[in-house]
Amino acid sequence: MQGLLNDLRRTHYTKEVTPELKGEDVLIMGWVHEIRDLGGIIFVVIRDREGRIQITAPSKKVDAEILEDLRALRKESVVAIKGTVQEAGKAPNGVEIIPAEIYMLNLANQPLPMDPTEKVKAEIDTRLDSRFLDLRKANVSAIFKIKSRMFHTVRDFFYKNGFVEINTPKLVASATEGGTELFPITYFEKEAFLGQSPQLYKQIMMASGMDRVFEIGQIFRAEEHDTLRHLNEAVSIDMEASFMDDEDVMKILNDMIYQVIVDVNEDCSDELAILEHEMPIPEEPFAKVTYDEAVDIVNAKGVEMMWGEDLSRAAEKALGEEMDDFYFLTEWPSEIKPFYVMPNADDPVKSHAFDLMYKNLELSSGATRVHQYDVLVKQIEERGLNVNAFGSYLKAFEYGMPPHAGWGVGADRLTMVLTGVENIRETVLFPRDRHRLTP
Amino acid sequence: MQGLLNDLRRTHYTKEVTPELKGEDVLIMGWVHEIRDLGGIIFVVIRDREGRIQITAPSKKVDAEILEDLRALRKESVVAIKGTVQEAGKAPNGVEIIPAEIYMLNLANQPLPMDPTEKVKAEIDTRLDSRFLDLRKANVSAIFKIKSRMFHTVRDFFYKNGFVEINTPKLVASATEGGTELFPITYFEKEAFLGQSPQLYKQIMMASGMDRVFEIGQIFRAEEHDTLRHLNEAVSIDMEASFMDDEDVMKILNDMIYQVIVDVNEDCSDELAILEHEMPIPEEPFAKVTYDEAVDIVNAKGVEMMWGEDLSRAAEKALGEEMDDFYFLTEWPSEIKPFYVMPNADDPVKSHAFDLMYKNLELSSGATRVHQYDVLVKQIEERGLNVNAFGSYLKAFEYGMPPHAGWGVGADRLTMVLTGVENIRETVLFPRDRHRLTP
Repeated sequence: MQGLLNDLRRTHYTKEVTPELKGEDVLIMGWVHEIRDLGGIIFVVIRDREGRIQITAPSKKVDAEILEDLRALRKESVVAIKGTVQEAGKAPNGVEIIPAEIYMLNLANQPLPMDPTEKVKAEIDTRLDSRFLDLRKANVSAIFKIKSRMFHTVRDFFYKNGFVEINTPKLVASATEGGTELFPITYFEKEAFLGQSPQLYKQIMMASGMDRVFEIGQIFRAEEHDTLRHLNEAVSIDMEASFMDDEDVMKILNDMIYQVIVDVNEDCSDELAILEHEMPIPEEPFAKVTYDEAVDIVNAKGVEMMWGEDLSRAAEKALGEEMDDFYFLTEWPSEIKPFYVMPNADDPVKSHAFDLMYKNLELSSGATRVHQYDVLVKQIEERGLNVNAFGSYLKAFEYGMPPHAGWGVGADRLTMVLTGVENIRETVLFPRDRHRLTP
Repeated sequence: MQGLLNDLRRTHYTKEVTPELKGEDVLIMGWVHEIRDLGGIIFVVIRDREGRIQITAPSKKVDAEILEDLRALRKESVVAIKGTVQEAGKAPNGVEIIPAEIYMLNLANQPLPMDPTEKVKAEIDTRLDSRFLDLRKANVSAIFKIKSRMFHTVRDFFYKNGFVEINTPKLVASATEGGTELFPITYFEKEAFLGQSPQLYKQIMMASGMDRVFEIGQIFRAEEHDTLRHLNEAVSIDMEASFMDDEDVMKILNDMIYQVIVDVNEDCSDELAILEHEMPIPEEPFAKVTYDEAVDIVNAKGVEMMWGEDLSRAAEKALGEEMDDFYFLTEWPSEIKPFYVMPNADDPVKSHAFDLMYKNLELSSGATRVHQYDVLVKQIEERGLNVNAFGSYLKAFEYGMPPHAGWGVGADRLTMVLTGVENIRETVLFPRDRHRLTP
């Protein structure tokens, strides 16, 4: 009975089987979601990506062999069932199928390591250990359908705005931004590292004249975080554009996020409903809060914060209480931002860096970049980094680097916002943290 | 003069400045491509992503200060020039600009490490060392515009066909397919590796019920190749679909490649012309050659090949002489294909694996996969691999794995075909091979 596909092909997804097909033969394929054997009648619910359908087998109407096959089914086995569509007011979609042929494609073992039909939430670690079963739950797969829709919109947005898609290397020769820890690799006879960001490469691309580029790709950070907002492997949406400044690229980011939310609401209303999450269309343009103002807000909320410090988690939370939507945090102190951030010409203690926040969650960092070789070398030195390690990057600034600006958005964090989940691990199929390397 | 962008903004790309704008003021931004100082008149050609435009400064018409600024320019510097559009039959686009304001945004050093306007081809290593300059050549950036268009079409194709985009981890706990060498990483206290393919993960996703998935992402192979067709970091286009077999996914691959070629011809005709490359719309459906037939063809061409061997480079070349377009190579011997490939039920020495070839270049490998746990374990053991290393993969086959099939396409190799270049390094912005880790 354990079978090959051979010439069997699905005629319909479950949700495509509607009362209009009454009397017609259909072939559906999927997983055994539920079996109820009432003796004189057997009900089996079959689940596929798009939904569920009821197979109804009254012993008077259906061959004995079919009844035997149905009784041999185990939950979560994979089957193909051919049968006739019949109206059934109480069943999902208002239809049921009277089975004529049953093909067992893969019998599931028992007991399952976790129940994908359960209503009670299992621990995240149990779920991630059996992620393939976890994903069979509608409220888990919904997250990834929304994430896929988000990427789709993001790419369309970039294409429409004249951006060229690029891929930059993840195997890099030296530490880039300093500070953040790197994963070392043995690269033949040499030492190499995994890229923590495409930052330096997308800047080099500005010197190529390609004008506007974007990349969606993996980034790797060897930080020993153990929070609900950090992973050691993440996906970053990065852009960089020539002849633009921080204001220009904040506008681009605002427009992109707005479009994502519009499209997710339009195309993923079922998924949002399953997740019981509302994602209201944000007010536009997004508010701007200067770093100075943020310090005041945070202190007024009773969280101590000195000017010149980065936002602590407590500070982010205090700020999120005041700011209830998307907002830009601007005019950051130069000192706590990376060397490639352009200082303010009139007041160099402040910079042209910004973050995009959603309530208390940081989604994106961006800035006008330094395009002048001398300023860049000075800023690298001021941060105690080794200028020699930046040779091939600095070279791009010597022979015609245009003014430019850009940002990176954490795709997994953006998915947290879109889906309303609290743990970033929920938004990644196979998350990587300090304790998890499998599956 | 080394300047900030401030409020300067481009009004037009060079190619948008047409005779219809005669008498109007425009502001263009770009690189100094050429300077000709004839004493009484100075010509400067400015280049941006979209093309070139001529700045014409007759000493009688233009302020002395402007002339001085123009004389101070160096090739490949970045400038913003504001001026009035004037018809000029002989100039590009039939227009020139009489300059009124010149802003130096970044002065280029001299001499340049390579000349981006040169007609003579530099060595690939020299070019890659200064890739940002190399990319300023129209015949280099054209490759990446075509590659970006290819990715765009591929994604649209997948979206239209009901595929969900996924991201699978690049940090993995153990060797996957065996054979191919892996890059080891130090992952906190553990040993880990860089993923050589999303193969096992996209198969696990079939057990999730997501039905059809695709991923476009980096793959890493520690092979010591030194050829024109291999890199140690590459981008792979991967798909996997449930309830499909090799024939179904070959059809999908055929349709996708066809659409890519149609779109590249339509949207990138300028780039193909610059590359002097024709990419004819292929005959459909792509031809199919069995492995047995291929052995005969190769031997008939005088290249010795035993049944059961993989294709040597000489064999690929012999085959490519006979087959002048896209074609599938089918019915491969089971023994030389990976453990996850489904053997032929009637003749298990042969398999349901296929390659997609273009002339003598392998572009893709795919297959119907084994979905039965027992067969899979047996095939892993037969290849001398350690079954225990596949624990979290095998688990997905125990609890309802549907029949499935899929393939992976080398995105960089596909770009070679689309652009007609002979060295895969031409198709990657910052290629990684055994000898190259920078820039």
